[in-house]
Amino acid sequence: MAIVLFTDFGSGDIYVGQVKAVLQRLAPGVAVIDLLHDVPAFNVRAGAHLLAAMVDNFPEDSVFLAVVDPGVGGARDAVVVRADERWYVGPDNGLLSVVAARARNSDSRRISWQPPELSASFHGRDLFAPVAARLAAQGGVPADWLEHTNRLNVDFGGDDLPEIIYVDHYGNAQTAVRASGIARTASLLVGAHRLPYARVFSEAAEGAAFWYGNSQGLVEIAVNRGSAARLLGLKIGEPLVWA
Amino acid sequence: MAIVLFTDFGSGDIYVGQVKAVLQRLAPGVAVIDLLHDVPAFNVRAGAHLLAAMVDNFPEDSVFLAVVDPGVGGARDAVVVRADERWYVGPDNGLLSVVAARARNSDSRRISWQPPELSASFHGRDLFAPVAARLAAQGGVPADWLEHTNRLNVDFGGDDLPEIIYVDHYGNAQTAVRASGIARTASLLVGAHRLPYARVFSEAAEGAAFWYGNSQGLVEIAVNRGSAARLLGLKIGEPLVWA
Amino acid sequence: MAIVLFTDFGSGDIYVGQVKAVLQRLAPGVAVIDLLHDVPAFNVRAGAHLLAAMVDNFPEDSVFLAVVDPGVGGARDAVVVRADERWYVGPDNGLLSVVAARARNSDSRRISWQPPELSASFHGRDLFAPVAARLAAQGGVPADWLEHTNRLNVDFGGDDLPEIIYVDHYGNAQTAVRASGIARTASLLVGAHRLPYARVFSEAAEGAAFWYGNSQGLVEIAVNRGSAARLLGLKIGEPLVWA
Repeated sequence: MAIVLFTDFGSGDIYVGQVKAVLQRLAPGVAVIDLLHDVPAFNVRAGAHLLAAMVDNFPEDSVFLAVVDPGVGGARDAVVVRADERWYVGPDNGLLSVVAARARNSDSRRISWQPPELSASFHGRDLFAPVAARLAAQGGVPADWLEHTNRLNVDFGGDDLPEIIYVDHYGNAQTAVRASGIARTASLLVGAHRLPYARVFSEAAEGAAFWYGNSQGLVEIAVNRGSAARLLGLKIGEPLVWA
Repeated sequence: MAIVLFTDFGSGDIYVGQVKAVLQRLAPGVAVIDLLHDVPAFNVRAGAHLLAAMVDNFPEDSVFLAVVDPGVGGARDAVVVRADERWYVGPDNGLLSVVAARARNSDSRRISWQPPELSASFHGRDLFAPVAARLAAQGGVPADWLEHTNRLNVDFGGDDLPEIIYVDHYGNAQTAVRASGIARTASLLVGAHRLPYARVFSEAAEGAAFWYGNSQGLVEIAVNRGSAARLLGLKIGEPLVWA
Repeated sequence: MAIVLFTDFGSGDIYVGQVKAVLQRLAPGVAVIDLLHDVPAFNVRAGAHLLAAMVDNFPEDSVFLAVVDPGVGGARDAVVVRADERWYVGPDNGLLSVVAARARNSDSRRISWQPPELSASFHGRDLFAPVAARLAAQGGVPADWLEHTNRLNVDFGGDDLPEIIYVDHYGNAQTAVRASGIARTASLLVGAHRLPYARVFSEAAEGAAFWYGNSQGLVEIAVNRGSAARLLGLKIGEPLVWA
């Protein structure tokens, strides 16, 4: 049992520690794992695909506290999703919809509970963290905290997204295309570049760009001992096609 | 019971892990929460106000290990402050003085204990961490480790500071002015800009700058889905006035 | 007992959380300490010297999961090193060789175990983490997981390296020269600069550059309340000599 944090709060910023204060108070002794706090800021769609690519590492009953929430304080709903025996708590803005769409089974519930003190801008701390803590520490929340919904309000579906969704600190550019569906003979076209496949970094010449299936199961653009993002001028949102 | 870390050591740098090694050795099993390691470097005054705005999230008996310490190795004292039933361990350079001044009750003691090995530049690891670990694991330190002081040597007082003290990774600029004392009809003047109030981000037009009361209770300058720091050219230390 | 992480995965990136998922699954309840995730990317030699300077903070039987692994997926071996009663798990590319060379006693074993699923690019998660988890949770691994090797394939030896190996977020430049061997009367020549010794920051004039023995026991180049890296134009790999 663990609470897994997945946000755009910034790994070095003031927000994660405040969330952990709440989790420590309401779910003491439960392990808390920082999966990612540097989801591209405000980028719900990139976050949804990144999250879907990383949940399989975690055991059943893990509770994901997932927050990329540019509409916080506005009209969007807050939801709990149960998908393939894992829990997800976050805004109903699409962030949880790729995970839900790809799950063998999933169920969504709107959070109707309101905390006694709710800031306008930090529902991660004030609303989502208490719900995640209850799920993790007690295996569920009181019945009147949630209302069944037929479906999520915002649903991106489970299809791949042929775009760059994340650039890591090495300069590798991750896409939202699952590598299992792409032939190794295909070339990837991005910007003015045409990139061949390589199985591992050390198979490519030093400084050469290539695509490969990364350890999250996604197509990634990389350069052996170099930065693909810098070399090729890649940015989040950049589209790609196959040839 | 938790030890809460609040420093300018850098969240990705080599220092925090060394502090945690000490805490793990002397207070195994005690939760350690990283509240913030990216206090603006050497900026004791900004740190003092940031800390004071975030302590209410934490329960009684939490032990704050607070280190922004440009004078390390020099003549400044080391102190333990007890304020509103929480503990604070750090340098007597003003960092703990805003918390102390605002507490309903507080008490300061100089650390007279010296560790067997004390580096000249890393008292966070060698001096403050062992004291914090003892406080957390045993609820106190031996009587001869501390000496009562009438007051802190450096005291910034408990008043607001009308300046920008922190810029987060979204580009929001946090001030050291508590929002509860400011009328929502007031405009904030910063640099050449005059900013209106908005309750939440989604109430402002996309790209528009505004001020609001943030989730730490402070006045913050923000832009809906944009970076206020970049748009308005804001920097830490920039003064502000109300109109 | 703790698992200590030392990598170039990036403290804010997507990799550390996936490693922690494995550790949480295979070694629940074992403390995990992030020592450093911002080893200069791909820089095995800098990592080897940084690691050797920081292990003494940790008790016996600590398990270091050390990964700076540009050759991942290629022919390099994976090893477990036992040195001065601590465990080290990582690639056999030199990263563990400085620690091993300086230990009073050390022993190296090749990891022959293969996990059921091994990605080509993330052995930190798929291979090294399960081995580290077994070592920490059970005090050892099954006998047929390891093969004795006479020595490491890549061995940098235990000597100092007169170069800059790390620049911290304050702008201090750390070298791989142990300060205990250098006379305080020596001047350090780096680039066009000749730097005197100072015992502590507050002993140097504000804005003045100097060298000192840092809290890891290494020679470091610093500026009181300033950035030595920026002021002197220092970069990782820059050589230094004494005069």
